Amino acid sequence: MNSIGAVFRVEIFGESHGGCVGVLIDGCPPGIALSGSDFTADMARRRGGGKGSTPRREEDRPEISSGVFEGRTTGAPVLLTIANSQSDPSAYEDLRYTPRPGHADIAAWLKYGGFNDYRGGGHFSGRLTAGLVAAGVVAKKIIAPAEVKAVIEEAGGSREIERAVEAARKDGDSVGGIVTCVAKGVPAGLGEPFFDSVESAIAHAVFSIPAVKGIEFGAGFSSARMRGSECNDPIKDRGGATEKNDAGGILGGITNGNEVVFRAAFKPTPSVSKPGRTVDLRTGKQVEISVKGRHDACVAIRGAVVVEAVTAVALADLLLRASGSRVKTGG
Amino acid sequence: MNSIGAVFRVEIFGESHGGCVGVLIDGCPPGIALSGSDFTADMARRRGGGKGSTPRREEDRPEISSGVFEGRTTGAPVLLTIANSQSDPSAYEDLRYTPRPGHADIAAWLKYGGFNDYRGGGHFSGRLTAGLVAAGVVAKKIIAPAEVKAVIEEAGGSREIERAVEAARKDGDSVGGIVTCVAKGVPAGLGEPFFDSVESAIAHAVFSIPAVKGIEFGAGFSSARMRGSECNDPIKDRGGATEKNDAGGILGGITNGNEVVFRAAFKPTPSVSKPGRTVDLRTGKQVEISVKGRHDACVAIRGAVVVEAVTAVALADLLLRASGSRVKTGG
Amino acid sequence: MNSIGAVFRVEIFGESHGGCVGVLIDGCPPGIALSGSDFTADMARRRGGGKGSTPRREEDRPEISSGVFEGRTTGAPVLLTIANSQSDPSAYEDLRYTPRPGHADIAAWLKYGGFNDYRGGGHFSGRLTAGLVAAGVVAKKIIAPAEVKAVIEEAGGSREIERAVEAARKDGDSVGGIVTCVAKGVPAGLGEPFFDSVESAIAHAVFSIPAVKGIEFGAGFSSARMRGSECNDPIKDRGGATEKNDAGGILGGITNGNEVVFRAAFKPTPSVSKPGRTVDLRTGKQVEISVKGRHDACVAIRGAVVVEAVTAVALADLLLRASGSRVKTGG
Amino acid sequence: MNSIGAVFRVEIFGESHGGCVGVLIDGCPPGIALSGSDFTADMARRRGGGKGSTPRREEDRPEISSGVFEGRTTGAPVLLTIANSQSDPSAYEDLRYTPRPGHADIAAWLKYGGFNDYRGGGHFSGRLTAGLVAAGVVAKKIIAPAEVKAVIEEAGGSREIERAVEAARKDGDSVGGIVTCVAKGVPAGLGEPFFDSVESAIAHAVFSIPAVKGIEFGAGFSSARMRGSECNDPIKDRGGATEKNDAGGILGGITNGNEVVFRAAFKPTPSVSKPGRTVDLRTGKQVEISVKGRHDACVAIRGAVVVEAVTAVALADLLLRASGSRVKTGG
Repeated sequence: MNSIGAVFRVEIFGESHGGCVGVLIDGCPPGIALSGSDFTADMARRRGGGKGSTPRREEDRPEISSGVFEGRTTGAPVLLTIANSQSDPSAYEDLRYTPRPGHADIAAWLKYGGFNDYRGGGHFSGRLTAGLVAAGVVAKKIIAPAEVKAVIEEAGGSREIERAVEAARKDGDSVGGIVTCVAKGVPAGLGEPFFDSVESAIAHAVFSIPAVKGIEFGAGFSSARMRGSECNDPIKDRGGATEKNDAGGILGGITNGNEVVFRAAFKPTPSVSKPGRTVDLRTGKQVEISVKGRHDACVAIRGAVVVEAVTAVALADLLLRASGSRVKTGG
Repeated sequence: MNSIGAVFRVEIFGESHGGCVGVLIDGCPPGIALSGSDFTADMARRRGGGKGSTPRREEDRPEISSGVFEGRTTGAPVLLTIANSQSDPSAYEDLRYTPRPGHADIAAWLKYGGFNDYRGGGHFSGRLTAGLVAAGVVAKKIIAPAEVKAVIEEAGGSREIERAVEAARKDGDSVGGIVTCVAKGVPAGLGEPFFDSVESAIAHAVFSIPAVKGIEFGAGFSSARMRGSECNDPIKDRGGATEKNDAGGILGGITNGNEVVFRAAFKPTPSVSKPGRTVDLRTGKQVEISVKGRHDACVAIRGAVVVEAVTAVALADLLLRASGSRVKTGG
Repeated sequence: MNSIGAVFRVEIFGESHGGCVGVLIDGCPPGIALSGSDFTADMARRRGGGKGSTPRREEDRPEISSGVFEGRTTGAPVLLTIANSQSDPSAYEDLRYTPRPGHADIAAWLKYGGFNDYRGGGHFSGRLTAGLVAAGVVAKKIIAPAEVKAVIEEAGGSREIERAVEAARKDGDSVGGIVTCVAKGVPAGLGEPFFDSVESAIAHAVFSIPAVKGIEFGAGFSSARMRGSECNDPIKDRGGATEKNDAGGILGGITNGNEVVFRAAFKPTPSVSKPGRTVDLRTGKQVEISVKGRHDACVAIRGAVVVEAVTAVALADLLLRASGSRVKTGG
Repeated sequence: MNSIGAVFRVEIFGESHGGCVGVLIDGCPPGIALSGSDFTADMARRRGGGKGSTPRREEDRPEISSGVFEGRTTGAPVLLTIANSQSDPSAYEDLRYTPRPGHADIAAWLKYGGFNDYRGGGHFSGRLTAGLVAAGVVAKKIIAPAEVKAVIEEAGGSREIERAVEAARKDGDSVGGIVTCVAKGVPAGLGEPFFDSVESAIAHAVFSIPAVKGIEFGAGFSSARMRGSECNDPIKDRGGATEKNDAGGILGGITNGNEVVFRAAFKPTPSVSKPGRTVDLRTGKQVEISVKGRHDACVAIRGAVVVEAVTAVALADLLLRASGSRVKTGG
């Protein structure tokens, strides 16, 4: 449901305009140094604030409410809460019965029978990704010395990201983008051949980020147009290193010791001031709406650090699980 | 590990050249009619036999060993085993210490410390997908009247699939392809906002298919180049129907009542007779190998029915889970 | 780890002398009325305050931080936090390196390598059961109209509970007790034949209560001394009603429509002012300690409402799971 | 559902009078020597054959169908099947609509809507424990050098077990019993404070054995009659060793380095030739039946090895999970 991971387990909670958002982390090994300042850099990256990002600017300092003692994790669950200091639910009253096109509103209405908190998407809001980023900070400490880095590589089909985003913003519109993520230093042998392949685990995590609609590992969709002799990665040594990395560091669902590389496609945020058609849930008639409020022109920009975070969460779980399965036996 | 699903749970087992492959299915509701003939059509689609497919041609009749009584499921676990009648492990002895480039061989060696069954990929083999297809037959009965259909839409970048595959085969090479999958009649409200989005669940399942390296829902990677005003699906009625379906039937991770649509990218099978470079695990030196044996020139052709199967498995689990969460309460 | 349930999922967090304790509840169906006052009665029962209970008397008002909107559950995770308003960690500084006999202290030290919060048992404290009781309040609403009631039936081997507890208290000692729990109105057909029997599910939940060391269903240990002809419950009607209920409402691991009945044994709380022997973790030498501070003379008294709570949690999960597996199919 | 374990995962299948019973084991580490002869001793203990045990005497040689290569586990799922060579379903035709008192028959009917395999209890049969014992053989290799031993300590309330059982048998009746189980060499630090305590994990496993109705750890129900000063185990050294072991090796849900000790209560098998009252499911009227066929007079005798097996399964999972959580971090 709202949790991920078998051994390193993250559960998310909160609503866009409720009291807080956050995560509860179970399975965190004891002894990891953790304090409020560890979150500063990644939370700032997520908060954004450049041109084209929402003017909602909360401090987003995660409070560590349990699981840390004398500056180190204890092995008990770690509760991280982030206050919604600038929530403004009044802006959403109009939208209660006119679900925004492209948003989760209509799906939430149908799923929860109208009991969902509709204000700003409620539990579906991008605001919830603050909790993901906080979980990612903890996960990155677990997977160290392995490292995950994600950057936006194009927006609106253009490598000139700022220009594309600014153009969309001026038009009262938004634009999609592509984020590239690389994990270095990931040990070989993570993942499982069926169902819990590394691709499965990472894709599972990444598709929980609002607006992500596609993912590809290594050569990905390009490999569908290749020949085998071209796509195969020649193996260089017994550690599994290859001459190139079309497989994106994963063979048979298992890490092969190379960098894990993937790309994620973000659709444009559906909140645009350009008018769109929807249905009035009270009358059943189609009406036109335009979404006011504070929104990003390109969520992929701030999405990069979220991709990083959930990838670290997925890798931390795979890593801790692998430690279990490698136990020496006397058999 | 080797299982998927929370309420409808499928676990896979077997090796390419062991005694059998198959699946054990837990959480199958009682009362579903199930007999050997139900598997015939889909198993035949997976078995292939057209030009460019492996000459290994087993009957692949799943044996129902438990969980069915007097022709109907009992509610107890359903064990389906498929004998490996034409296994020929001798062909693989040469490859024991020279992992095939692009294959799982090297990853398996590193993960399992050399204890894995290396013959034909062992537990990593495409042969295991026979079990997936068998599980899919059961899952399709559970999701009915919803239906899943997948077809190959291009191979080697070409819509002229047969020609592209035949050309590769003649060159002792292989070619990748793209499979499109559509699920009709899926009720609105399946999936969860975070972590267990429908995209997460389906991607998790589809990335367990050997050779899949990418997936996109609805407009997918194209939506990264769109503007929001263009990408948003205008809503037509209170049931969630939209004018187009760029979201691929999923908003906020939840089905919105439209068709669920996605595309999966298959890389070319790495087994090619064209020589490639690998390492000799005994000496650590790079050597050249060419893979003999019975192989497909385009695994995406037979992959379509496997995509269908795992999608049905993922949807069956989401559907049975949703039944639980919708219970009426007196609260 | 620190969570329970497959479909109705409860995760616990907090430390005795940290900022708060509480639970995060996932899988709660939408539309259930929930407000602060719902918790008052059960929290008061847990808080105790009679003779022989700890003088630590916090208000224990769970704050609903997410998952409730306009007075009803939304279907999103419900976060319940309970402030530790009267924590007093200074009392425990002495005990840091002298684990209290009979307590979790030594086990926690060994498990977490000394990183655990040792103050008052930290995450192992009976204080954590405040979160369990809060979760039970929600679970009871889900299982309604079924009802769970637990009472203490004996303390120190005596039915005269008050007298036994008072006698122990005067001696600077403590005493164990037995709690009987009855669930009425539980539908037939819950549970699974293997591994997830109703006994397994309830025992799993009840053994997470600190101090519980035994559980028996129906005639329990007495049935080990019976003959089959004596122990068998004669069946009265097609609904499964029996003439007596030696099976405690569970046959083959499945509810049979009768009342679910079990008894749980609580050991005496190990915190006693009578001196006991332990080891000094710094020197490795045995030393004598006596535990000061605020403690119950019989935890079983306040344990009854905790037994009720975790039983309701276990039944809510079984009930919501069963709803999933009973889906009608067209097969 | 029909599986147990998070990292070492066992799923059970089969019916008493179907083709086979068995288990599918996931998460088994690679490199463990495993062959058919490993199962001989424990399967023989379960098969019984002494006075008072059923004359059904199958060879019960588990066939290893996957996951083992060249005599060692590969890390892939291990499928163990045990043929039902002496099934005789005809004996049960009479009982189809007259559920045996004390048996799962009525619960299964109510749960599965009559689709369950009713013959000899179907999936609920004690026959299924052959699979549990087989899984236990594998688990015992994983937990080595720790060892689990279980013995019957009384039957029908008497330490003179043979005499009590023989007396019951002569009367066409059956008798219950108590099994004591001790696990030596279990490392300190296994288990979790809440929900996954070692007591929770073992009780969960043991209550999946048909006929078990109670469990107690260490002093168990006796501790409910003790005082704290009497029940507390004085600690002897930094490894957690205690002067006695009233806690049964578990404090705060965590192993403390002492022997894990518990007792399980088996009710008498409900299959007795003495007549009992039940309902005819066709007419709804109460009728008298007596159960013919091949049955044990005391299932606790053969139950001891099953208790051993599921305890080893539970400990193997806890052990492999703990390996994961202890990973060294650089944080």
